[in-house]
Amino acid sequence: MINHNYCVILAGGGGSRFWPVSRENRPKQFLDLTTSGKSLLRMTYDRMSRIIPAENILVVTIDKYADLIRKEIPELEDRNLLLEPFGKHTAPSIAFASYKLLRRDPEAVMISTPADHVIENVHLFEQTIENALDYAADKNVLITLGIVPTSAEANFGYIQMADSEIRMGEPVKVKTFTEKPDAELADVFFKSGEFLWNSGIFIWKVEAIKNALETLAPEVTCLWKGWDRILNTEGERKFLEKIYSDSPTLSIDYAVMEKSDNVWVYPASFKWADIINWDSFCEYASKADKDGNVLKINGKQIIKKTGDTIVYSGGKDKLIAIKGLKDFIVIDTDDVLMICPKDDKSFSDFNSELAMPEFEKYR
Amino acid sequence: MINHNYCVILAGGGGSRFWPVSRENRPKQFLDLTTSGKSLLRMTYDRMSRIIPAENILVVTIDKYADLIRKEIPELEDRNLLLEPFGKHTAPSIAFASYKLLRRDPEAVMISTPADHVIENVHLFEQTIENALDYAADKNVLITLGIVPTSAEANFGYIQMADSEIRMGEPVKVKTFTEKPDAELADVFFKSGEFLWNSGIFIWKVEAIKNALETLAPEVTCLWKGWDRILNTEGERKFLEKIYSDSPTLSIDYAVMEKSDNVWVYPASFKWADIINWDSFCEYASKADKDGNVLKINGKQIIKKTGDTIVYSGGKDKLIAIKGLKDFIVIDTDDVLMICPKDDKSFSDFNSELAMPEFEKYR
Repeated sequence: MINHNYCVILAGGGGSRFWPVSRENRPKQFLDLTTSGKSLLRMTYDRMSRIIPAENILVVTIDKYADLIRKEIPELEDRNLLLEPFGKHTAPSIAFASYKLLRRDPEAVMISTPADHVIENVHLFEQTIENALDYAADKNVLITLGIVPTSAEANFGYIQMADSEIRMGEPVKVKTFTEKPDAELADVFFKSGEFLWNSGIFIWKVEAIKNALETLAPEVTCLWKGWDRILNTEGERKFLEKIYSDSPTLSIDYAVMEKSDNVWVYPASFKWADIINWDSFCEYASKADKDGNVLKINGKQIIKKTGDTIVYSGGKDKLIAIKGLKDFIVIDTDDVLMICPKDDKSFSDFNSELAMPEFEKYR
Repeated sequence: MINHNYCVILAGGGGSRFWPVSRENRPKQFLDLTTSGKSLLRMTYDRMSRIIPAENILVVTIDKYADLIRKEIPELEDRNLLLEPFGKHTAPSIAFASYKLLRRDPEAVMISTPADHVIENVHLFEQTIENALDYAADKNVLITLGIVPTSAEANFGYIQMADSEIRMGEPVKVKTFTEKPDAELADVFFKSGEFLWNSGIFIWKVEAIKNALETLAPEVTCLWKGWDRILNTEGERKFLEKIYSDSPTLSIDYAVMEKSDNVWVYPASFKWADIINWDSFCEYASKADKDGNVLKINGKQIIKKTGDTIVYSGGKDKLIAIKGLKDFIVIDTDDVLMICPKDDKSFSDFNSELAMPEFEKYR
């Protein structure tokens, strides 16, 4: 029996908010932020492999990360690695994956997931996904997973449900998508019980998202005219270069989800986190010691008279000996040592200097 | 014409007051503390090579540093590397070197110098040494170099002159040697004009120091009975093992210099420093930037909002990005990162932990 379920991992994002651990050439999805021994990308792939057959898992990324992807997922078939010439955010990536999948399997049902989120309680996750896949295969709807919030987090987007009574395992119609709220509004959202965190994990029939994109984001899809002739031929690369060079930069949330009246959300309560910066790293880790320190140290450590400090060190053989720091961040990598106060970690000073040619290799 | 001048570099000292840069297996003399690209030992050797022919320069050290010595001074002849089975301070080392030299050249005149001091104004240094060598060859005296003090330094030993009128280039009789004074006494010494810093650099006929040792430190030299038969034979190693196992631990200052009434000092004004810990490292460096930072960083640096802080990093390719530290010491080596307040850098906490087996490799 043919398995029509596919997973598309979006792994083209950049960003260096975890500098100096993340870099332009090694963004967050390639990092082992949870110090599990696996990168977030690899953890995403492994998690999806429990639900979707490996030959049906695709990764979309940009050219410059191709080698990193192959290193992280050596078993990935070439046809399952979709390379974008430039990054133009998620709407073009999902259009690309959708057209590719339609060439392969017109009945395809697809899960789209970021490569850089942390998910625990994998069993609950699987259950939710399986429910959603069944629902999506059956109906022409767009489905998103919404996480039942555990705090008034201002760093995540929110989804408002049309019906505030949550029945786990059953989809609820979506009323609105909202961008990251301010702290006050986040508090209102949290207390109302009508809002879920937007996980960025979507499930839909490929035909359904293609139609939604063509209807709601024609400025993206008009560029793809002729895809059914050109994809998977020698002309594909040139075709993509033209599309990506002309395409607007657009997120799938903005292009489709916020506009469609056909979106359903599956409330879910597995532990989910988008670790977006060292602050949320701290919150996620939440295994602070009695002094409030969050220590992710691969080697040995002697930490004295130090409180509310994050220490991250990748070196297996390195001893970290720290005394007398309060509210600091200490990050030690092969080629950068960064020490700065927690409340002054925009690194804007560093970044302006890092823009200088002599610092290029550290960006 | 035979050159009877020899230099003996004492390079067997241990200590880890520069931990984590210095280690039990890599003490100060092997470090490039001045970031000149050369270790203090190598700088000492190069400095002496300008005065003494290479074949007349000896190094005394303990077994476990033999390889480090050979690495630093690959051209050192085997017969010029004197290996002590254990470290028993400087009196036994100088006895050893003296007996060895007497076998080689009964007319030998010897300079004895620590391996781990910093000396600048090399031309002045050479002049002083040459004057002292001439004087020592001519008379049966023990000579030391005394540095005209530039501050009331409490970390150095002092030499009181019998005559407080300094005539550069001429020796003055020594009245007393004193150990490191307290701050108040150091101030009295400094202001009196009668005191010089004890450089630990000595010049004497080998016959003269041998006689002085045999008279003033018989507890050391009695162990060497038979040296003239046994040294340079197959029995030497066993002979040394017995001597060093039985020998008291004794400095040449205590054993001879403080007791002899035959000691003369050459006042000298070359820049000299015994960098004994990170504090004196700071004083020596004294090239603090406008914020009072002393930065010895081999790679690149971005230092912001940071003051009165020492940063030492050995990595050529490592970027050091620091913000918001005040009165700290940051030391980054291949296998240790140490961060601690300047006024809490005894590392006694660290050291007690370092005594644990799991930290052995970092000691």
